[in-house]
Amino acid sequence: MPLNPKRAVAELKELRTLTADENGAQRVAWTDTWLKAREWFAAKLKDLPVEHHYDAAGNNWATLPGASEKALLIGGHLDSVPNGGWLDGSLNVLAGLEVLRRFAEEFNGRPPVTIRLVDWADEEGARFGRSLLGSSAFAGTHSIAADRVRTDRDGIKLEDALRRCGVEIDRSPESAKERANAAAYLELHIEQGPVLEKMQIPLAVVLGTKGVERHAITFHGQEAHSGSTPMNARRDALAAAAKLALEIRPIARKHPDAVSTMGSLKTFPGIVTAVVGRCEATLDQRDLNAKILAQMYQEAIEASKRFAAEENCTVEWSRIWNIEPVPFHPQLIDLCDEAIRETLGTSRDTSSGKSHRMPSGPLHDAAEVSRSGIPAVMMFVQSLNGISHNKIEDTREDHLELSVVALDRLATKTANWILAR
Amino acid sequence: MPLNPKRAVAELKELRTLTADENGAQRVAWTDTWLKAREWFAAKLKDLPVEHHYDAAGNNWATLPGASEKALLIGGHLDSVPNGGWLDGSLNVLAGLEVLRRFAEEFNGRPPVTIRLVDWADEEGARFGRSLLGSSAFAGTHSIAADRVRTDRDGIKLEDALRRCGVEIDRSPESAKERANAAAYLELHIEQGPVLEKMQIPLAVVLGTKGVERHAITFHGQEAHSGSTPMNARRDALAAAAKLALEIRPIARKHPDAVSTMGSLKTFPGIVTAVVGRCEATLDQRDLNAKILAQMYQEAIEASKRFAAEENCTVEWSRIWNIEPVPFHPQLIDLCDEAIRETLGTSRDTSSGKSHRMPSGPLHDAAEVSRSGIPAVMMFVQSLNGISHNKIEDTREDHLELSVVALDRLATKTANWILAR
Repeated sequence: MPLNPKRAVAELKELRTLTADENGAQRVAWTDTWLKAREWFAAKLKDLPVEHHYDAAGNNWATLPGASEKALLIGGHLDSVPNGGWLDGSLNVLAGLEVLRRFAEEFNGRPPVTIRLVDWADEEGARFGRSLLGSSAFAGTHSIAADRVRTDRDGIKLEDALRRCGVEIDRSPESAKERANAAAYLELHIEQGPVLEKMQIPLAVVLGTKGVERHAITFHGQEAHSGSTPMNARRDALAAAAKLALEIRPIARKHPDAVSTMGSLKTFPGIVTAVVGRCEATLDQRDLNAKILAQMYQEAIEASKRFAAEENCTVEWSRIWNIEPVPFHPQLIDLCDEAIRETLGTSRDTSSGKSHRMPSGPLHDAAEVSRSGIPAVMMFVQSLNGISHNKIEDTREDHLELSVVALDRLATKTANWILAR
Repeated sequence: MPLNPKRAVAELKELRTLTADENGAQRVAWTDTWLKAREWFAAKLKDLPVEHHYDAAGNNWATLPGASEKALLIGGHLDSVPNGGWLDGSLNVLAGLEVLRRFAEEFNGRPPVTIRLVDWADEEGARFGRSLLGSSAFAGTHSIAADRVRTDRDGIKLEDALRRCGVEIDRSPESAKERANAAAYLELHIEQGPVLEKMQIPLAVVLGTKGVERHAITFHGQEAHSGSTPMNARRDALAAAAKLALEIRPIARKHPDAVSTMGSLKTFPGIVTAVVGRCEATLDQRDLNAKILAQMYQEAIEASKRFAAEENCTVEWSRIWNIEPVPFHPQLIDLCDEAIRETLGTSRDTSSGKSHRMPSGPLHDAAEVSRSGIPAVMMFVQSLNGISHNKIEDTREDHLELSVVALDRLATKTANWILAR
């Protein structure tokens, strides 16, 4: 049987039926529903000539050995956020499975290069707040010390939750040995944003993942009685924070792809009859260009100090997390572009000679793989309404099928590229 | 013994020792500590020729019958917020007690008019969220139906908490019969704001209590991924709310005494990686002039709609509570002014011919009394650092003593005014 994109879509629906409830997908990493998804996936591998194992970090590997030991990796993740969608992560895995099947059949179980499909452990970090756990162990960027003490909402330790699933956190760096012979990495993903839908384009080449500066910002003013404190005697921490909430936007808009978000703002004491004495906000800034990102971060700090001074408040910054921009491999970007153009050429006209190229705002396992030095690229397929991490996350079925075809083309091109290097 | 202002201060300290812990005053209405404060106060009344009873709403009355049945009322409240200060409410009661003693002694137990000291029940509303409970029952403005179902943090019903203290909520409107023969009402209170301290003035006449418009405002946008949603595709509910948080200030600053506060702002989902889809804010606007207050409210609504439209959001308003401005009695205002000038004349020069006159931003029992048609006025004594509802709430002791003297003078003037009417 040749490539069967409809089967990938059917299997995504099968997985949804198995692991979603009325609120959406519940495949949160290290839970029973996630383990059930992985068992279901393991059963799909049974009839294929693949070696299947879980590595020391819980990553799930299916390897189709080829004539060359050099390996083409195709990745995704079966875990979801709570109340998540049916495509985020799973599309990558099931499209990859379809490509694996095609290689196995076309080359009678022995393709020119080794093909490895990986289902990364805990991409979302939904339960313990640490995303890309499996792929960062693989990449060697993972810090066990910082993560061991994490607990979930019920106080269960990350360490114990992993052990229950057969993963010893102290051994997780051993996942790095899976990097042996890895020659390229491909990942298909839903866009999770509104750009492609607005442009009426089904597929895009991903240039890299944006760098992220993520900070907690606290403005300190003076709690005061809302009735007895004249306007000119106030030290209103919310006013300073509100100015910053607005100012981060022009700071980002100077750059075409930059984004800047205040996602959380908390007021203390937070009662109707008191001027806000303390205001805690979060800031998330992203761009593919490290220089632009650094400039945005600096401008936000300066603005916050200016606003604090204007409101007779003080301001403190504390970094929650950051990551450098991760540009993908230029030659793989070109191959991805070719694969998309060839795929769309069979189904519709493309007016330009190039596919759409865009950075990814969300992080993906591909960023960790790329940081480990393995050439990587991603492909996006259009999302409907730009919504993900939600049960209404969706993509047109014809677009899903196109994405499987395009990933398969890209895999063939990349296998040839590996052999030619 | 003549008026003894130092005794009032000493008794305030006695009460603090009895009812405060390391976090401040704990005389929350309908609790054991509050009952203990009232027992302590009852013991203070034993040697005085007064009739003492609790009315149907739990208000605490000490009556010194006079030659005339016409009664001069002096009020305060022994209840505090949790972790409160030593002066808010209690100063009023203990200064009033001192005045009662002076009348009793000067007129051998039978002053020209009846003098009644009242300790209102549950001025703060700290436990059940319903302030001015006792004085609104007295004034007949109290709605039992709305309050019966209130519960505290532990789920205890207001109705049951009152019953434990001997108050049947269904009978509380009978408190209105205490209005018989009431001819005037006086209340001394700490300012709870920074105005008098900034002006270096110990005492002020209160013109009335400001009207309040208190609203919940919800902006609805669209939750979206902070990484994948371009700046121009966002419907950021926080941005709309931030604009309003800033705009309510110039709306208030157009008027000399107006205040406007956004005390609480909540973001949903409120996570660092999501554009805010829903933002809930509170607004508290106050002014002594009903027309100005109505204008401020209208301007805030219009601004919120404009900002919602700018951010491609929608906005909903829901009234939490409101009260009309309550101006005090013009003749009692003049008497209060005289009393302050005479008092300060004995202790320091006053450069102007008038005392400082100011509206009260905070509500007080005097507002309810005034709404029932009884002529009322209040006097403010300076607060240190403008802070109350906090264990650091404080006032200079010489200022406290001055306030007792001035209240006493005002009581004499008001008694004469009652007789002359």
